[in-house]
Formats: sequence, structure tokens, C-alpha cells
Amino acid sequence: MSELRLDPTTREWVVIATERARRPHDFARATARPLPEAFSPSCPFCPGNEARTPEASASYADPATGSWRVRVFANKFPAVGPEGSTERRQEHPLALCVDGVGAHEVVVESPLHNRMLGLMSDEEVFDVVRAYRDRLVTLSALPYVRQVTIFKNHGPSAGTSLDHPHSQIVATPVVPWHMRHRYDVATLHFDERGRNLYSDLLQFELEQRVRVVRESPSFVEIHPYASRRPFETWIVPRSPRASLAGVPDAELREFAGVMRDSLRRFFTGLNNPDFNHILYTAPVGDECEPYYSWHLRIYPRLTAVAGFEIGSGIHINTSLPEQTARFMRELASADAGE
Amino acid sequence: MSELRLDPTTREWVVIATERARRPHDFARATARPLPEAFSPSCPFCPGNEARTPEASASYADPATGSWRVRVFANKFPAVGPEGSTERRQEHPLALCVDGVGAHEVVVESPLHNRMLGLMSDEEVFDVVRAYRDRLVTLSALPYVRQVTIFKNHGPSAGTSLDHPHSQIVATPVVPWHMRHRYDVATLHFDERGRNLYSDLLQFELEQRVRVVRESPSFVEIHPYASRRPFETWIVPRSPRASLAGVPDAELREFAGVMRDSLRRFFTGLNNPDFNHILYTAPVGDECEPYYSWHLRIYPRLTAVAGFEIGSGIHINTSLPEQTARFMRELASADAGE
Repeated sequence: MSELRLDPTTREWVVIATERARRPHDFARATARPLPEAFSPSCPFCPGNEARTPEASASYADPATGSWRVRVFANKFPAVGPEGSTERRQEHPLALCVDGVGAHEVVVESPLHNRMLGLMSDEEVFDVVRAYRDRLVTLSALPYVRQVTIFKNHGPSAGTSLDHPHSQIVATPVVPWHMRHRYDVATLHFDERGRNLYSDLLQFELEQRVRVVRESPSFVEIHPYASRRPFETWIVPRSPRASLAGVPDAELREFAGVMRDSLRRFFTGLNNPDFNHILYTAPVGDECEPYYSWHLRIYPRLTAVAGFEIGSGIHINTSLPEQTARFMRELASADAGE
Repeated sequence: MSELRLDPTTREWVVIATERARRPHDFARATARPLPEAFSPSCPFCPGNEARTPEASASYADPATGSWRVRVFANKFPAVGPEGSTERRQEHPLALCVDGVGAHEVVVESPLHNRMLGLMSDEEVFDVVRAYRDRLVTLSALPYVRQVTIFKNHGPSAGTSLDHPHSQIVATPVVPWHMRHRYDVATLHFDERGRNLYSDLLQFELEQRVRVVRESPSFVEIHPYASRRPFETWIVPRSPRASLAGVPDAELREFAGVMRDSLRRFFTGLNNPDFNHILYTAPVGDECEPYYSWHLRIYPRLTAVAGFEIGSGIHINTSLPEQTARFMRELASADAGE
């Protein structure tokens, strides 16, 4: 018999299909996808080809050589751009629209064409998440930006055909309904319980311990109770802070290490699966509220999202988060030489 | 400059990426995917192999031969099943769950392994949608069912590897949050405007006419104002009725013809793309309310859902519904020999 679990951060049900559940190692690719070469002459993100992309809006250099380690620039095919107004147009009571004013940037994560996040040093990952935070701060200051979404698509089924490691940042002139809902759910929890939802969630997971993958002084990595997909992973700070914008360097460096470890385990344990990751952070203007907490969610693309998910919003998870968390925890222990 | 449009049925924004917009015919497959043979000896859904599937819970026979034209049975790997209780269990304030009690059925749409809905006669499609309606009525009467979701996955990227034409029906013991939200949005519209949201939406589309593909006496086929995906198609009844359950045969037969035509145009105009379709219908117990309207949504899988969509809920549509509707309208006129 399967079980439906309610995600306390969205109030959405998830089917945990225990009868159809596959064992964690069944989700690994049969053979590792070969990594590309370290340099690809035709790749617009490789060093030497900078002229093929827009001018950098930010870059982080190797202190020894002075050459860039992380480079940020405007997407050449942007979903939203700097022109236009946030003034809504209401052509009809059922037709409300606004210009696509905002920013859409690419974060090239490494000069090396094959240096995936999970294979980097902690310091290299720190440069990437520092770019996330700094661009969040800069883009949030633009008068037309209401939400910044930071995400990564890795592999064709996750929505990219470009091998070169990169993330994207989209700053929209609206707070997405999806985000406002999560913020509202957290706010209601605070109003009712007097505590931050994400702190309570960590406390619950740390009591049960069965879905905790790894702990660091400031972060906890879990496979959540109501995981929507096999191996869905959240990295949540112990001290809630609504936005990534205010995270100091020391904490961000620690986060980079936890994230790198997690992605390395995906790479080794599941043979380099396609995945998305998303940095959840508060809407612009709601950064100081005690209700929400920024966090990272990793969604490996191991099963299809089909008609039932589209039509009901209920995901069918064919794995048990308790089992996948244990699988990853054992890999983490092995890594640590325990 | 792109444009953000608000979907009045969900209050979610969509990016219509006008600058990145591709022309409608660019979305067609370069070469048509070849159809399989009419019979596959190894297919559990083909005639003669009925013993490999559970006993039929319903079937619709050819009056001339007596053999089945549509056959419904329990999914062998069900997401939810008949055992269990709807009693919620609250292990912790943040952990609410319920047994996966419900029903999960397969609707085999034709005895022929290659007879896709778009290639059927109207009468054959009528059998399929009659099965949808009749199973909805039967499953809604089960004491533990609160919502019935009827959907189809066609092709690997839509979530199926089985060629034999089939749909699925999942009856859940909960109203999905996704559905309750749509119902609430429609109810609020009714409370404020005194009219059914879907009637108002059709009136708006029929005034503008630019996104209407086809009209029949009782139905209108549109590419909605805030289409989330290229070629997203809705077939909406002119007279709103909350549930498919009460639709009489004559109206259902007309619906079958409109749906068949629409799917045939997908087949010919886009070269048999992968797609999902979903029959939206009211929660069990809300069938008589004047707020909602049942309808069909077709989602071709022509572009990827990537990290931005997962993280913000905002879809980026790289086509204009005004252009795709026109493309389909012209195909419809050609079909009609106009």
C-alpha cells in the first residue's frame, strides 16, 4: 500500500509509491556518462571565446594568475531584459500583462569545460555561490526586480544541451505565485506556531534522523519527508535567514563545501545524473522577515513528470526518502573514510 | 522585449518570450515518427493478451462483432489502490499522511496497437471519452475518493514507453492542492463577477478571436492567452458544467469529434509529437457548483521544463499563442476543404 504525505512547505500531497519503490542503487545510470575534454574550441563559455558572449557583469579571478574562475554575463537569448516598464496593462478583466523587464544572466562556473561543481575544490564552489549571492544583491537593487531565481540545468533532460558548467539567474518584475505561496505558508506557520517553519522542519528531521544525509555546523542536508522525486535533496541553514543576500562569507564557504559534497555523491553514487538545482530565496523586499529561510533544492531527473503530475500537482515518488537518504549517508561516510 | 501574462485560471505568470519566439512550423519534428504495426504479440494491451492484465472493470464492445473496442482495468503497478483508510495520521505537526487508498486504472483506447486517438473515427473516440465519463461516475461513488484525474501520456518525453494507445485514471483520497486552487480561483471569480470564469474566458477569446482554433456548437478550442507551453490547447464547453460526470451522450459525442480533430492536427501538423492531455473536472462533491467548468488541456512536449520553471513556477513559452492558434486554424480549414 502506498502512502500520501503532505509537504509542510507547500501543503501539496505527494504519493510515496512504496509498492513500486525501486532500491536506491537502481536509479544509477548503468554506465557513467563520459566527461568531455577540459577545453572545447567551439564552446562560447571556454576561455579565449569571451568575445562570443556579452561583456561580463561580474567575474571572480584566480588570485595567482589573474584569469577568471567564474564569469557572469547577460544571456544572449534572454527570457527578460532591461527594457520596459513594470506598469501593468489590463486589456480586459481576464488579460493582465506586464513587460518582460528584468535580467537573465549566465554564470559560467569554471574556465574548464568539464569541471562540474561536484568535482571542484571547495574554494572553486565558493566562487560560484559567491557569484550567486553578489548578483542577487546587485539585481535586487534594480527598481524593477521583485524576485531573483537562481538555478542550474545539468544534462539534456534537465533542460540544457550545453556541457560547459554553468548556472542561470533570472530576475523578474513579479513575485511568482509559486514563491509567494511558499512564503505565505511559512508566514502562516510563524503566525500560528511562533517559530520559523524551516527551523521546525530541521528540528523534526534531526529528531527522526532517518532522512538526514549529512550535518555541518551551520547546515543540514536532508531528503525531505514528502520528497516529490527520487533523491530530492535540500540543504537548509540551521539559522534561518530569509535571503541568501545577507549570508556572510564564512557561512557561504561552509555552504559551498556541503553543496560540493552533495553533488559529488550524486556524481559518484548515481553516475552523473541529469539534475536541476534551485536556490530558494525570499522575494525582494521580504529579506528581513523572520518567516522564511533560504535553502538549496537539488532535483535529479531520474523519473519522468507525466500527465498525472501536470494535472493534479501530485508527484508520484517511486523511492522512499528514508532509503535514498541512507544510501547517500553511507556514501558520505565512505568518503569521509569512516 | 518579452511579455509576462497572467493566467486568470491560476493567477500564475507566464513569460511569452517574443524575442526568442520560434515560428509554429519550427516545432514540428523533422521526420514523422513511424507508426508501429497494428498488432504486437508482446504487447499486454493487444487482443489475445487480456490474461496478462487484470480483469476488465469496464469495456465497450463493437456492436457488430461483440469484441472490445475500449477496455478498462486496474493498473498492475498502481500509485494508489483499494486497501487502506482515509483517516489521516499526524505523527508530528509537520508530518501528515494518509494511506494511498484509491484507484488507478488503464484505459486501452483501441484493440489496434497503432490506432492513435487522432487517427480514429469520431465513434471510436466517443467510446474512449464515454469510458472516461463512466469511470469518473463509478469511481466518484467510492466512499474514499475525493478527486479523479484522467490523463494520457503519449511518447517517451511525456512519460510512457508503451506504444499501445491508452489513457490512465487515478482516483485519490484527497483533493490535490493544485485542483483546489483552480476551483478557489474560479469560485472567487464567481463571487466577484457573478459569472462562471470559464464562460467569461470563452467570451473574451471569442471577442478577440486571435487564439481561437475551432468552434463547434457546444465547444471552443483555444490556445489560451497565457499559454505555458507552445501549442498548449484547451477545449472548453460553452455551457459550463463543473464535472464531466453529468455530460449527456450527445454533447460527449460532439466533444469526441472536436478532440479527435485537434489531436489529428497535432499528428499531421507537428509530425506526431509527444504530448499529455488532462481532463480537468471538479472535485468529488463539488460537481453541482456553478463556479467551475470541466475541460480538456493538451500539453505537447516540444520544449523542456527546466530549473527556472521548477523554481519559480513561471513557464517560458517560446511561441506566441496567437501564431500557433493561427497555424492550427489554417490546418483545420484545409482539413475542412475550405
